[in-house]
Amino acid sequence: MKISERLRRVPVSGIRKMFDLAGSGSINLGLGEPDVPPPGEALIGMSEASSKGMNGYGPTPGIMPLREAVASRYREYGIRAENVMITPSGTSALMAITQSLVDAGDEALIPSPGFVVYGPHTALSSGKAVEYKLTENDFQPDIDDIQNKITKKTKVIFLNYPSNPTGSVLSEASFKAIRDITSEHSITVISDEVYEPFVYDDRHVSFISELDNSVIVNGFSKMMSVPGWRMGFIVANKDVIPDLTKMSYHMCACPGMPAQYGILNAMPSVDRYLDEVRTVYRKRRDLIASRINGIDGMSLNVPKGAFYAFPGFSFDITSDEFAMKLVENGLICVPGSAFGSYGEKHLRFSYAADEQKISTGMDILEKVANSIKR
Amino acid sequence: MKISERLRRVPVSGIRKMFDLAGSGSINLGLGEPDVPPPGEALIGMSEASSKGMNGYGPTPGIMPLREAVASRYREYGIRAENVMITPSGTSALMAITQSLVDAGDEALIPSPGFVVYGPHTALSSGKAVEYKLTENDFQPDIDDIQNKITKKTKVIFLNYPSNPTGSVLSEASFKAIRDITSEHSITVISDEVYEPFVYDDRHVSFISELDNSVIVNGFSKMMSVPGWRMGFIVANKDVIPDLTKMSYHMCACPGMPAQYGILNAMPSVDRYLDEVRTVYRKRRDLIASRINGIDGMSLNVPKGAFYAFPGFSFDITSDEFAMKLVENGLICVPGSAFGSYGEKHLRFSYAADEQKISTGMDILEKVANSIKR
Repeated sequence: MKISERLRRVPVSGIRKMFDLAGSGSINLGLGEPDVPPPGEALIGMSEASSKGMNGYGPTPGIMPLREAVASRYREYGIRAENVMITPSGTSALMAITQSLVDAGDEALIPSPGFVVYGPHTALSSGKAVEYKLTENDFQPDIDDIQNKITKKTKVIFLNYPSNPTGSVLSEASFKAIRDITSEHSITVISDEVYEPFVYDDRHVSFISELDNSVIVNGFSKMMSVPGWRMGFIVANKDVIPDLTKMSYHMCACPGMPAQYGILNAMPSVDRYLDEVRTVYRKRRDLIASRINGIDGMSLNVPKGAFYAFPGFSFDITSDEFAMKLVENGLICVPGSAFGSYGEKHLRFSYAADEQKISTGMDILEKVANSIKR
Repeated sequence: MKISERLRRVPVSGIRKMFDLAGSGSINLGLGEPDVPPPGEALIGMSEASSKGMNGYGPTPGIMPLREAVASRYREYGIRAENVMITPSGTSALMAITQSLVDAGDEALIPSPGFVVYGPHTALSSGKAVEYKLTENDFQPDIDDIQNKITKKTKVIFLNYPSNPTGSVLSEASFKAIRDITSEHSITVISDEVYEPFVYDDRHVSFISELDNSVIVNGFSKMMSVPGWRMGFIVANKDVIPDLTKMSYHMCACPGMPAQYGILNAMPSVDRYLDEVRTVYRKRRDLIASRINGIDGMSLNVPKGAFYAFPGFSFDITSDEFAMKLVENGLICVPGSAFGSYGEKHLRFSYAADEQKISTGMDILEKVANSIKR
């Protein structure tokens, strides 16, 4: 059985590799997985829906009350239910959008360091992924680099703020620069905003204001701490929702029904829930940042959003080698190289883990870092 | 925003079109959706898993105990957990397999009449779908037609037995013929066996015995009457599971976790559950078959499997026109043309609906059929 060229061009995710390495005794700061419990309303809503018989097929773009609840979250932008589509995960939303926009030979600009699926999704659409640099330290899109890499074939640019893996937040100046360039060259922005609820300093700048030229991906995995429910959503111009729906039908027919009702039941209280979660994450962020900056040869600008720390290091060792040394000592993280060619000399730690785990993990990091010859 | 050529080549599903037409007062025999309640164990298992905190990411190929439980269902074929992958629906399993095997320019043989996603999945993989005929009346693969349509570019053949939309079951002779041809020409069989549990006469012949040359798709939507849970599975040679896993990671990261635990909890009792469900469906099949065969100008060979009746009609009218007349009179079904060029002059009725609904639906069918001028 011969595997397609398409799939052979796609590497195994560097995040999943580390996930698979995790032993039961390890401190796992590798996976971006919220450890706080989901809102109780979500659990109740799912159980009730399922016992009331909501176990059949639903509409491909999601149940209408959930589309309406999402729309009302973005009321200030004039969003309505017809702009919203529920998807079976943020990942599948990203894949559906890429398959719907990128043709063979088209080019997609992807951030580096950046989340691991944009390149593979482009390859699976027979397009060509072209990395653009993020600036040093504050990890904004490098506008000069983007200008240099735009060609006539550039169809889309992926943006991801708050950023995985860097924890940076998009500045107003970067937003305007990207908006102007993409509009000038008719490039569609695919804005992955799944970490939108997690901004600790500054504020989130969303491309929802630019729906003529962009498609927004978001989801409930992080927002409600239910990554295992696989539920995301798209906000887009209403004219492209029917095409995205057609694509999504062929990927999964419809999003899961009991989970949609669970999320719907938690929507009215989600802002209160997120206030609490942000308070927890902010403390953890401060802890991990101060620990990392206390290690000789490592440095971190305090991340403003998401729940990742992406410190650089100055040791004469690759990020893969460093990460493997940490695994051997019982700490799982992800090497920066997993996030593209500009991710080298960094490690990604998720701080969606309790403070005890973060402390123990940082003890291991400090010990291993101090043991590396300089 | 320009939609990709790939997606523009894909039509909207004829089944979904009818789904969207269904008014609240209509008798809906359009959708292949079990109306019997799921096993209680599944509902309990899902609720318990979610309240115990199983809401995080899981392994891409599914949780190991569920892979083992599925494997033990196919023990007689020597299947082990490493041959099994859980997927977020049978649809996504089919798409992952097609994307993993079909390259640009490759040809895929698809049954006609046949289920609606094989052609679009091939197009989304930049392949070319070539229809092969099913034989009249008993809807077996027409081996001569297949022989004529095989070229050097033929990469895969889709089979779907028990069949949607025809309700036919694969004969032993057809199985052997397909096995021999595909082996001779190195064509991979993608065998969609989601209706495996629903065979009323004869027995199900599975391609699980031929894993060197075939990949099997199955799922829990029909088996446990939970189509809204979006949960399927693949049985394949263990050597291709890592590739399929890589593909599935990029489509959805992992299948939903609470639903997997729910299904796991119902696996020990599923055979008893299915015995009861089959008894119910068999009675309905007998009812719908006798009603249809009582209508002048319509005829149906009693279907042996799945839960569809696919009668032919001799009126001078297209299946689209006939179906629209039925919709206007309050009965939803799917026109045969939705299932390919050899589906014309047929209608598909799902009999996964209670006997009262079937009777009322058949009253409407009879009235409308009698009103058509001959």
